[in-house]
Amino acid sequence: MADATVKVRRTQVERRAHTRAALIEAAVACVNIVGPASVSTAQIAATAGVTRGAVQHHFGSAQELYLAVVNHAWEEIAAVYRTAPGLDVSLDRRITGWGTTMVQAYTHPAALAGYEILVHYRGNAGFMAEHTPMALAAEQRLDELWVAAFTDTGLSRAELVGIRHTARTFMLGAVARRLMIPETDADLRRELTDLLRAFLPARQ
Amino acid sequence: MADATVKVRRTQVERRAHTRAALIEAAVACVNIVGPASVSTAQIAATAGVTRGAVQHHFGSAQELYLAVVNHAWEEIAAVYRTAPGLDVSLDRRITGWGTTMVQAYTHPAALAGYEILVHYRGNAGFMAEHTPMALAAEQRLDELWVAAFTDTGLSRAELVGIRHTARTFMLGAVARRLMIPETDADLRRELTDLLRAFLPARQ
Repeated sequence: MADATVKVRRTQVERRAHTRAALIEAAVACVNIVGPASVSTAQIAATAGVTRGAVQHHFGSAQELYLAVVNHAWEEIAAVYRTAPGLDVSLDRRITGWGTTMVQAYTHPAALAGYEILVHYRGNAGFMAEHTPMALAAEQRLDELWVAAFTDTGLSRAELVGIRHTARTFMLGAVARRLMIPETDADLRRELTDLLRAFLPARQ
Repeated sequence: MADATVKVRRTQVERRAHTRAALIEAAVACVNIVGPASVSTAQIAATAGVTRGAVQHHFGSAQELYLAVVNHAWEEIAAVYRTAPGLDVSLDRRITGWGTTMVQAYTHPAALAGYEILVHYRGNAGFMAEHTPMALAAEQRLDELWVAAFTDTGLSRAELVGIRHTARTFMLGAVARRLMIPETDADLRRELTDLLRAFLPARQ
């Protein structure tokens, strides 16, 4: 009896999590196709294969759904960062690897949708007040992953964090530029790797 | 008689140019205040102190007005570039000067409005087809101004152009970032100057 109750509960929790994830994925796809200004919760629900009431039920409002999308974007960026090479790889190959990783992280569909949503909601003080602590915590996690990969360079933590912030701002510009001018991932990877190499100590 | 005709014509030309410039300045102000999605030609005309028909008369359509705003943005960016230090200044002070110049150029109100318009119209193939040759010509003028200021570094033209493109992409990211997170011009100038210094030969 107790076991059956636990089983039913877990299934409900799993089903809820599945519907939330499906709505977030659908929102990413819809925002990337039509933009955050034109997308509707009805379109997102239809793409996710759920009823229109599901957005209200699971998120309360479109704004909370979009905050969940941005939070998901930060998680995906961190997940890609975790695939970057560490101290066991030569500095030269590590820099090239991080160039690839950062391009993957910031051109991930979730990251692009998160960026579009942030640009769209930037004038909305309530949205930004909920986003800012989320962004600061996420950026700090990314700082830790980056600093841990370059502790052997002899640069201070502050210097390393500064280099990541410059590289991240460059990538943000590259994403904005890409919205206007088509370019290949290969060109972007090379440009970002050159930037990292200019700042980090000479190749080993 | 001939003189009088010339005088009247010039006055009409001047008046037309004045109205066009007033509409472009008003569009810059309105786009920066309410964004390109919410601004109307009626609001722009009212801000410029002209009738609603003036937009139609001088530009034909809202889209042509916005193209003129973007063109104006490119001209303002080039005008700021022309104030940057040249070969008569030490390399160290020249790099600092260019850091200041680029921050001024890309945070100019016309540049910010042009950026917002481009992001808004990026999915409009007709708009982008008119913009792309304008952008390529403008970027080439900016390349010439930059390369001429650093011919004494021993770097090739292609290397110098590559460094400017990286710096410009960083600035585009900084502008996008600034839409979301407040920061000071001083921090941004220092970060951009560090980037230029990392790429250009050691200080003199």
